[in-house]
Amino acid sequence: MKTIAFIGLGNMGGPMAANLLKAGFSVNVFDLVPEAIAKLVEQGATAFDSATDAAKSVDAVVTMLPAGKHVKSLYLGFVDQDGLLDVVNADTVLIDSSTIDAESAKLVANQAAEKGIEFIDAPVSGGTAGAAAGTLTFICGASDAAFDKAKPVLEAMGANIFHAGSAGAGQVAKICNNMLLSVLMVGTSEALQLGKDHGLDPKVLSEIMKVSSGGNWTLEKYNPCPDVMESVPSSNDYQGGFMVDLMVKDLGLSQEAALLTNSSTPMGALARSLYVNHARQGHGRRDFSSIFEQFSKK
Amino acid sequence: MKTIAFIGLGNMGGPMAANLLKAGFSVNVFDLVPEAIAKLVEQGATAFDSATDAAKSVDAVVTMLPAGKHVKSLYLGFVDQDGLLDVVNADTVLIDSSTIDAESAKLVANQAAEKGIEFIDAPVSGGTAGAAAGTLTFICGASDAAFDKAKPVLEAMGANIFHAGSAGAGQVAKICNNMLLSVLMVGTSEALQLGKDHGLDPKVLSEIMKVSSGGNWTLEKYNPCPDVMESVPSSNDYQGGFMVDLMVKDLGLSQEAALLTNSSTPMGALARSLYVNHARQGHGRRDFSSIFEQFSKK
Amino acid sequence: MKTIAFIGLGNMGGPMAANLLKAGFSVNVFDLVPEAIAKLVEQGATAFDSATDAAKSVDAVVTMLPAGKHVKSLYLGFVDQDGLLDVVNADTVLIDSSTIDAESAKLVANQAAEKGIEFIDAPVSGGTAGAAAGTLTFICGASDAAFDKAKPVLEAMGANIFHAGSAGAGQVAKICNNMLLSVLMVGTSEALQLGKDHGLDPKVLSEIMKVSSGGNWTLEKYNPCPDVMESVPSSNDYQGGFMVDLMVKDLGLSQEAALLTNSSTPMGALARSLYVNHARQGHGRRDFSSIFEQFSKK
Amino acid sequence: MKTIAFIGLGNMGGPMAANLLKAGFSVNVFDLVPEAIAKLVEQGATAFDSATDAAKSVDAVVTMLPAGKHVKSLYLGFVDQDGLLDVVNADTVLIDSSTIDAESAKLVANQAAEKGIEFIDAPVSGGTAGAAAGTLTFICGASDAAFDKAKPVLEAMGANIFHAGSAGAGQVAKICNNMLLSVLMVGTSEALQLGKDHGLDPKVLSEIMKVSSGGNWTLEKYNPCPDVMESVPSSNDYQGGFMVDLMVKDLGLSQEAALLTNSSTPMGALARSLYVNHARQGHGRRDFSSIFEQFSKK
Repeated sequence: MKTIAFIGLGNMGGPMAANLLKAGFSVNVFDLVPEAIAKLVEQGATAFDSATDAAKSVDAVVTMLPAGKHVKSLYLGFVDQDGLLDVVNADTVLIDSSTIDAESAKLVANQAAEKGIEFIDAPVSGGTAGAAAGTLTFICGASDAAFDKAKPVLEAMGANIFHAGSAGAGQVAKICNNMLLSVLMVGTSEALQLGKDHGLDPKVLSEIMKVSSGGNWTLEKYNPCPDVMESVPSSNDYQGGFMVDLMVKDLGLSQEAALLTNSSTPMGALARSLYVNHARQGHGRRDFSSIFEQFSKK
Repeated sequence: MKTIAFIGLGNMGGPMAANLLKAGFSVNVFDLVPEAIAKLVEQGATAFDSATDAAKSVDAVVTMLPAGKHVKSLYLGFVDQDGLLDVVNADTVLIDSSTIDAESAKLVANQAAEKGIEFIDAPVSGGTAGAAAGTLTFICGASDAAFDKAKPVLEAMGANIFHAGSAGAGQVAKICNNMLLSVLMVGTSEALQLGKDHGLDPKVLSEIMKVSSGGNWTLEKYNPCPDVMESVPSSNDYQGGFMVDLMVKDLGLSQEAALLTNSSTPMGALARSLYVNHARQGHGRRDFSSIFEQFSKK
Repeated sequence: MKTIAFIGLGNMGGPMAANLLKAGFSVNVFDLVPEAIAKLVEQGATAFDSATDAAKSVDAVVTMLPAGKHVKSLYLGFVDQDGLLDVVNADTVLIDSSTIDAESAKLVANQAAEKGIEFIDAPVSGGTAGAAAGTLTFICGASDAAFDKAKPVLEAMGANIFHAGSAGAGQVAKICNNMLLSVLMVGTSEALQLGKDHGLDPKVLSEIMKVSSGGNWTLEKYNPCPDVMESVPSSNDYQGGFMVDLMVKDLGLSQEAALLTNSSTPMGALARSLYVNHARQGHGRRDFSSIFEQFSKK
Repeated sequence: MKTIAFIGLGNMGGPMAANLLKAGFSVNVFDLVPEAIAKLVEQGATAFDSATDAAKSVDAVVTMLPAGKHVKSLYLGFVDQDGLLDVVNADTVLIDSSTIDAESAKLVANQAAEKGIEFIDAPVSGGTAGAAAGTLTFICGASDAAFDKAKPVLEAMGANIFHAGSAGAGQVAKICNNMLLSVLMVGTSEALQLGKDHGLDPKVLSEIMKVSSGGNWTLEKYNPCPDVMESVPSSNDYQGGFMVDLMVKDLGLSQEAALLTNSSTPMGALARSLYVNHARQGHGRRDFSSIFEQFSKK
């Protein structure tokens, strides 16, 4: 595999495309923002005037877009405009790394399959830091064949490449994981604040729970209580990290998924309500661990 | 330190006292159930007719009782009956390993301090299996001096000995941890079921989330979805393990603690409601991971 | 206004069409189930072979369908089939009384408006009893002109005709009301059970709360605790009334609406979770006041 | 009945005692704040130096105190100080109108019964406005005989006098009602905001829901959305009315009651969490309908 088209060069997509260049791939790039294209061209990428031009005759396409509607119109086209499915070679593997609803991912995968093209949903976790370092986690929904084909491309950008199941399964698994993450974050915040309210040192309490049955990722890597861990957003006035608004988006996707299958997710639904309230009070652009402040006294 | 009095020889206390014997301590025992005493005598313990008789002239006392009211009456006495505080030597260290409310623990600690006696709250986690194996976790509320004095005794019964803070802090930390555990269990259950409802294999989804930001103790050690892990209650019709009724008790203690300090624990409160409903529908004596069944279809 | 086409003659639509006949309208009917048509023909309606045939040259069309997708395909058509918008006269007023998502209602209203046709969303409450008695409540989203035109038709089927706002507003108001109803039902159930658990007579407690600040529709008309009121489902083993499955559907619509506007509805979301769990445990076809049983002891 | 002792002359107690004077009773008063006594003396009351002095040889005692601990020590005495039970005549009826936990109320009632004295719990609702106007609601836990004896006194201060059951039942019923009220308030707030987010006029939506199955006391009397009703706190920047801190106190009592009987109140518990968060963000002294602002955008 030699040439890859990369569409969507934002905070995540830009560094991901750069890592493909570093790994020795030829990379065709397109974005609606000219500055984003220019930055990648400096690093060795080839600029194109449209997504369809960039994607013609490549071995793989990687897309990184904001929402399901963008993914659908880019791949399927609209009105008088061709979609990627209309222009790519039959042996090009299509990789969408956007975080979107599973229904849209399945729809595009099915349309691609009808044309004999492989499309995989491969949402990521790890944030902008992981994108820059090439240590992202990819969670893929794909046939075995497509997964094997995409893997070398993904390995140039990430450290963990999971195969969750068939088309759409990557999105579902990402959504389940992020819903659970929000529950861990809220649950850990309220447990730490309850301890603090009773006079416990949150560092000591965190150490105890981390190695006990309350142990979870947020205690390990992302403690929400200020000054318990260094170099995490909570010790930097909740700047940087993963924004509340993005968690609200992901929790919206999880609730959409729960509606489709008549599933019940009381904790996930409650987490969404608390995060929406938090965002509405003006905290949308702060790190998602700032939910801790809903429990602490002003 | 040579001689220890052990009061309360039930499913937890019995094996704990046995481990003290194995470690070479002389152990004076008392329980309201004669059979429980007899079992320990077979293993080398000395039987006494009352808790106060057992506790006279020992180096340490360990108690393992159901609730705060039992702890208060045993240590403080009532009406015409002496409490342990009335009979023990001033240099005996008193260790209560019951899981009770922090207020009761503090009250006894304060009364003991007035008499110049050291009392520590040292609730455990690890269940009956940990009690038998001597691998319990002890979470202690104590002065530094009392903690140092108690540590060799606790090490004969457990693998992890934490010092959470001063009097009552052991109970608070245990309560915070178990509240968080309940949130992990419910949140993990609903995430796994949401994935299942969308056709994902719960084993694959568990593997992915375990090493991602959804990672937590229940995915590591105690998966609630049947047939994902071997040798856990969920793969044995939710028999054994930690009963729903005991989780309801611990969640009651956490809500009691939250009321005392006007703290807010939305996830913990919701977990309590779901566990109470589950218990009321007849599942009180099943393992607490059976909450998974609230989300799966009959 | 003389002639009305009625499409969808199920448990609700059948008696509604019958009331139009009683009020002196000529009624053209269509349903996919021949028996449903036959029943109305007996009462004086005229049968047609298709919805489009029934709707040609009438003064008003009323539709009563299960979900948004049915409403969209009936009005907008699909593939080679005409929709109602393709065949009706420009002065025919179109009234959809289905309970569906507001987005679908707005979409059809906009398409109709482009052709100069008035379409109003007019979901009902009052159940099958209200449909039979002609005492339904209609909550309408419509222009003032369309509302005035539709009103005489609606008055033949209902007792209260509300104008909630422009296109889609009828669906939104219905959804908000039913979400609030679910919260009243769950909140009242847990308050009554809490009182019962403390030895209060639920009849006495209901009487007190009904005229106090806890007063609400469920205490007035639909007490969920068995044997407090006569002639309500709770006193008849929760048979009849409004099914749990239908409440789950309406709560799904409310959560869908909340996702669209990034709104937070913690109580509504929790009610949905509790109702979904209740349905999954096998209670989907019982009355929605049976949620009371989630709180009472078996 | 001629002479009544009134202990506790705060914002509620002061106007209640004044209404007893207006109704022609002789009133003995005591409070820890001399100004509060002076105000009542101006209106014709007789001042005393202690509660016990005021309560000797009267026909009835009414007390209005902040919490269970005050009620217990006033009636039962402590250390070297007599309680009211030690000094009143056997035929004096004791009426406690404080809002406290049912356990404390039952304890005092039982101690009184052992001395052959009638004690009733009679918490009120209606706020300071109702206290001034003499239109309070009294919810009583009492024997039939005691209730009949107390009724004429209560009727001088209130408009509705309910007999909820035996000792403690007044407190339980009040707690159940206020828990339900909080659920109505939060549920109504989120339903109105969801409608607003979709472009509905909250006045129109309120009118519709008020007469539909979403109807409840808050829509009738206390709409939380600004500018829907006149003369309610929401139209006056949430000043006046019933403070968030008082709702937090009452919700604490309801959760305490739920813990005692292992009852599940998911909505009440969630309401408490939301109100505690609201208070911690600095809104404790605003009206409890200000919870609406948790859902609206800043």
